[in-house]
Amino acid sequence: MEQHQLIDLLKQMTLDEKVGQLLQLAAEFYSEKAEEKTGPMTDLGLTHEDINNAGTTLGISGAKEAIRVQKAYMENNRLGIPTMLMADIIHGFRTIFPIPLGLGSSWDLEAAKKMAEVSAKEAAVSGLHVTFSPMVDLVRDPRWGRVMESTGEDPFLNSRFAEAFVRGYQGEDLKNDFLRVAACVKHFAAYGAAIGGRDYNTVNMSERQLRDSYLPGYKAALDAGAKLVMTSFNTVDGIPATGNKWLFRDVLRKEFGFEGVVISDWGAVIELIPHGVAEDKRQAAELAINAGVDIEMMTTCYTENLKALIDENIVDEAILDEAVLRILTLKNDLGLFENPHRGADVTLEKEVVLSNEHREIAKDVARKSIVLLKNENILPLSKQEKVAIVGPAADSHDVIGVWSWQGKKEEAITLVQGIKQLKVEYMAGKEVFDYFNPSQAAINEAVSLAKEADKVVLALGEEDWMSGEASSRSDIRLPQAQLDLFKAIQAVNENIIVTLYNGRPLDLQGIDSAKAIVEAWFPGTEGGAALADILYGEYNPSGRLSMSFPETVGQVPVYYNGENTGRPYKPGDEKYVSKYLDVSNFAKYPFGFGLSYSNCLYTDLQLSTNELQSGDVLTVSVTLENQSDVAGQETVQLYIRDQIGEVVRPIKELKGFEKVNLLANEQKTVQFTITEELLRYVHSDQTCRSDAGMFDVMIGPNSRDVVTSTFKLLK
Amino acid sequence: MEQHQLIDLLKQMTLDEKVGQLLQLAAEFYSEKAEEKTGPMTDLGLTHEDINNAGTTLGISGAKEAIRVQKAYMENNRLGIPTMLMADIIHGFRTIFPIPLGLGSSWDLEAAKKMAEVSAKEAAVSGLHVTFSPMVDLVRDPRWGRVMESTGEDPFLNSRFAEAFVRGYQGEDLKNDFLRVAACVKHFAAYGAAIGGRDYNTVNMSERQLRDSYLPGYKAALDAGAKLVMTSFNTVDGIPATGNKWLFRDVLRKEFGFEGVVISDWGAVIELIPHGVAEDKRQAAELAINAGVDIEMMTTCYTENLKALIDENIVDEAILDEAVLRILTLKNDLGLFENPHRGADVTLEKEVVLSNEHREIAKDVARKSIVLLKNENILPLSKQEKVAIVGPAADSHDVIGVWSWQGKKEEAITLVQGIKQLKVEYMAGKEVFDYFNPSQAAINEAVSLAKEADKVVLALGEEDWMSGEASSRSDIRLPQAQLDLFKAIQAVNENIIVTLYNGRPLDLQGIDSAKAIVEAWFPGTEGGAALADILYGEYNPSGRLSMSFPETVGQVPVYYNGENTGRPYKPGDEKYVSKYLDVSNFAKYPFGFGLSYSNCLYTDLQLSTNELQSGDVLTVSVTLENQSDVAGQETVQLYIRDQIGEVVRPIKELKGFEKVNLLANEQKTVQFTITEELLRYVHSDQTCRSDAGMFDVMIGPNSRDVVTSTFKLLK
Repeated sequence: MEQHQLIDLLKQMTLDEKVGQLLQLAAEFYSEKAEEKTGPMTDLGLTHEDINNAGTTLGISGAKEAIRVQKAYMENNRLGIPTMLMADIIHGFRTIFPIPLGLGSSWDLEAAKKMAEVSAKEAAVSGLHVTFSPMVDLVRDPRWGRVMESTGEDPFLNSRFAEAFVRGYQGEDLKNDFLRVAACVKHFAAYGAAIGGRDYNTVNMSERQLRDSYLPGYKAALDAGAKLVMTSFNTVDGIPATGNKWLFRDVLRKEFGFEGVVISDWGAVIELIPHGVAEDKRQAAELAINAGVDIEMMTTCYTENLKALIDENIVDEAILDEAVLRILTLKNDLGLFENPHRGADVTLEKEVVLSNEHREIAKDVARKSIVLLKNENILPLSKQEKVAIVGPAADSHDVIGVWSWQGKKEEAITLVQGIKQLKVEYMAGKEVFDYFNPSQAAINEAVSLAKEADKVVLALGEEDWMSGEASSRSDIRLPQAQLDLFKAIQAVNENIIVTLYNGRPLDLQGIDSAKAIVEAWFPGTEGGAALADILYGEYNPSGRLSMSFPETVGQVPVYYNGENTGRPYKPGDEKYVSKYLDVSNFAKYPFGFGLSYSNCLYTDLQLSTNELQSGDVLTVSVTLENQSDVAGQETVQLYIRDQIGEVVRPIKELKGFEKVNLLANEQKTVQFTITEELLRYVHSDQTCRSDAGMFDVMIGPNSRDVVTSTFKLLK
Repeated sequence: MEQHQLIDLLKQMTLDEKVGQLLQLAAEFYSEKAEEKTGPMTDLGLTHEDINNAGTTLGISGAKEAIRVQKAYMENNRLGIPTMLMADIIHGFRTIFPIPLGLGSSWDLEAAKKMAEVSAKEAAVSGLHVTFSPMVDLVRDPRWGRVMESTGEDPFLNSRFAEAFVRGYQGEDLKNDFLRVAACVKHFAAYGAAIGGRDYNTVNMSERQLRDSYLPGYKAALDAGAKLVMTSFNTVDGIPATGNKWLFRDVLRKEFGFEGVVISDWGAVIELIPHGVAEDKRQAAELAINAGVDIEMMTTCYTENLKALIDENIVDEAILDEAVLRILTLKNDLGLFENPHRGADVTLEKEVVLSNEHREIAKDVARKSIVLLKNENILPLSKQEKVAIVGPAADSHDVIGVWSWQGKKEEAITLVQGIKQLKVEYMAGKEVFDYFNPSQAAINEAVSLAKEADKVVLALGEEDWMSGEASSRSDIRLPQAQLDLFKAIQAVNENIIVTLYNGRPLDLQGIDSAKAIVEAWFPGTEGGAALADILYGEYNPSGRLSMSFPETVGQVPVYYNGENTGRPYKPGDEKYVSKYLDVSNFAKYPFGFGLSYSNCLYTDLQLSTNELQSGDVLTVSVTLENQSDVAGQETVQLYIRDQIGEVVRPIKELKGFEKVNLLANEQKTVQFTITEELLRYVHSDQTCRSDAGMFDVMIGPNSRDVVTSTFKLLK
């Protein structure tokens, strides 16, 4: 359809039909079975007409069902407007990829894009049109369970991933490429900064910090073309995002120029009542529509009240029309008027979903996301060694993590299965090993296997439900039983390699005397195979943390890009500096950190000039030397520090990175370009600009170990 | 002097002399001994003339020395301007009172005022003119060591204490009442909100939150007449306070109308360099003077650079003149031009300092500040019981806490001494008991005493250096040795009463199975006597926490006046609410909490009307009934919740409290008045006003256990 046709369509719609477009209902409302449908309908007080007018749906799955629902819907809809099928496809549809925090650790934008492409393809042939991804919330508190769904603590890295995800989901030609889905960036805004790491909790920060650190990720997704934005559950400076006019009208729409659809998170409109800014559903509807929320997910504040609010001239009908037009436009951008079933294809679905090709891609991405945190010359394992594989995660299928809606644990490869695929000898137990309360038999078996082995792979971790939405933890250590197991094993065999499946940075006290620690996150359907490849050196680990691991929860938040303070801490320093009495200020494993089996030296940092003129380009180069006999991949990281700012600048900010392959003993020079644009930040007047003056430029394999030079920005 | 005489004096001053007034130097620069003086002079590159012109001094003590220094200073000062003697007199001068967090727990404004009066008197006769107190920084993170210096987590309570302290220090007639000192409110602003509870760390919050929660305490101190304001070390929205023009010129001076002296914290001007907003001392001077910092403490950015900055027209001389005039005005407000020695009096000093009268007052205040956290029918002790007093703090003089400059531990009463004063039989050990590494002999002795006793008083705690400035802890439990001791004692005697000396809310896991827990803070010179009185029922405990005790550090920050969120937590609730998986959202002991030996019932909450008209008064009353046979003091607390705000309001806000004495079984009715002014808060446009609508009014003995009613504000 052309735009004028959409406007004509809008004109034909009754007020009820228009309000209907703003309602999103879940799959159950479209069930064929009356008994599945009736309960929810009664709960929300909806009529069949309301359901026929509800503009979009949530969580319908499978080509056959999608086609049936769309058909029935359009038959019942007076104007034959198609519905739009949305769902949470976060890190894979049926072929599950590593959780986003793992994807973040790949620092591999191609891998992220590939994940999104595969997800889109599987979702699209299964009938879906929109995914509620990417989540680009900046995260600094590992207590928050939903860090698993973010790519980490850095605005620059999150922004690059945001772009990659959006491009992977949407492709180049969303309307005609039916194997793509529209992307919905979330959660606008600053959802990741919940106080105390407690999900849904209040967020408080200055507008300047919001703009400087938290908004860039969303902005990058929008600039890459994301079609939708989801509101966050939290308040933004005291006003819940879902009713925050400044945030959506002024910043998102006017300033960022976003013309797509804004959707509430699940129930977020009605939650304006418990938040304490709306007295009832009517006021919640008024606040949300005026703030610019187009679609209300799963509650009926709009359905019940918008008509009256418009009749009483409290809400301008033009605001409703704009919202409806944005929804119709998105349907049109997806080609749904011409092709209401879009990619839904029962035959293709069978071919594509969880195909061997997709599993291979998932395995490759999983390998890239695994981070080697520690290695005292014990890894990789050789096929000749007697290796015991023990612990609760050794043969566990709990490797896909939450937000794996269509993923099935039983389709996922365990570590033991992965090792078996490598056709090496290994020793594994038969007892089921509980994560929290292992039986004595299981413990005994593990210890006795460890006693016999040259080396022990001790597979530990969190169960999937321990991270994700509404899964905050005050204690971020491994369960006590696992720490006890580590001790028991260590008493009989010191050659311990700990592997970890988990959804957040952990406090590793209690297992940090292992000779090696491998952070595998929840690596997805092919997780165990990927991890086995890492352990046996089939793949040289290249993952780098995108979120710092604290020494202890009492240090939280620990992030690399903090400020210097007026009394900066150095270890061993005098009393009156910014520090704790009982622990350092530093992360146990900092942002950007990860080991490989190869070993790369950074030397010869060169700047093309020591003075950068605005408009010019400064080139900085560094020489890498693989000092090992193993080929490897290095993630070269560029950090910058603005020495003197109008406002205090972080001690380091990531401003570039490049993945570089190095053959054994190979030497390579890597270049970055620095322009004035890269040096801008948000000043106290909320404008983004740079200051003339001195800058540190730092390059290294992580945020801690860098070589440094300086230059001057002239203006 | 009259104001015009001060202006005349200013006109006679050379630029050097004016710049000199802005420098504050420590006692050593005024030492009689050349060797003490020369080092510091060389370090700061100061001449004798600089020292003779330096406007104020820091840390000179004793009437004789103060008189000597003032005399010598005035002789050497060309215009005979007196110097002004300042020091940190925080919770007592030589007679030490409970740390401010303990004073906060008294909820007793008369006690706070009395503390300030006694401190002022002792300091004044010892020659001092200004104290760097009160600190009114709102605190929510017990990791921060300096919580010990605050009255707690509530803006309303902190404000009332701020007023009481200022009135106690300054009296009604500062110029003529030589037994008073000028008060310096600190640290402007929001020093208590350091990220991660790490001292001096970055602070970030919205302007709205700053105004709503953090500024009221300072404002209350100013409205009570505080003569000085100290800058804070932290940044305020990215700009260090000491160079923050908006904060000092726009808010403090223009908006709050403050006409007194602004002094930097120790070294805070030069610290603009490490902060990263000033390139060098010259720029630091420029930023600080333009921000409105009058006195530079202990560094020489002004001394070295102001003259040149003025000569080069970078800084306006009028700004310098204003600063100098404010300093001269303060000297004049203290009567120093006429009475340069003011209260300094060698004879009076001997009478007044640490007098029995002062010790008695300190003891009374200490008793009021002790909080009974738990009591399973084990306290008070009776004189007939066989009681063992054991543990590291049993006979420790480490009871005065830090910021006790002139206080002497050896003058402080230990718990064992306090009990001895009561003339009861008790069993105590002889071994010295280390807080961290007790000897086996000490442990054995404690256990064997416990075995023989009916009840055990186990005296535990932090050593003084574990809280205070630059004393943040990531782990807020008691030292492991003390937890081990608790276990060992409990194995032989379950009737354990734990007493605690400490400077912050602690995580009490490991000792919370004690039958009673008594929080004594660092109670001061008479601390052990006060604690003994509590234990033996000589005083019925009346202290109430002014800062929440978390269950665990992983919950931090825990404070009573948080927001509801859109998905509020109730214990046992469903998954998708704002909570942790492993711990509640609640404090172990909430704000306002404390037990007594009496037991008070709150009933019959009555409102004079259910509709409050702006300009009118609503009266709310509640009936108290002492349901015990012991007389006691109840702290009746009034909380209000604005149900629906333009911005989300806290679930509870303290808006009034009253200390009520109740005889055994007595019944009393307590009244509070509510006016529209009390219902105002800072809106998103930064104005402070109220919203019409429904309010909850809650009254109770603490922030958790309240009786509730509602009313409507009409407009």
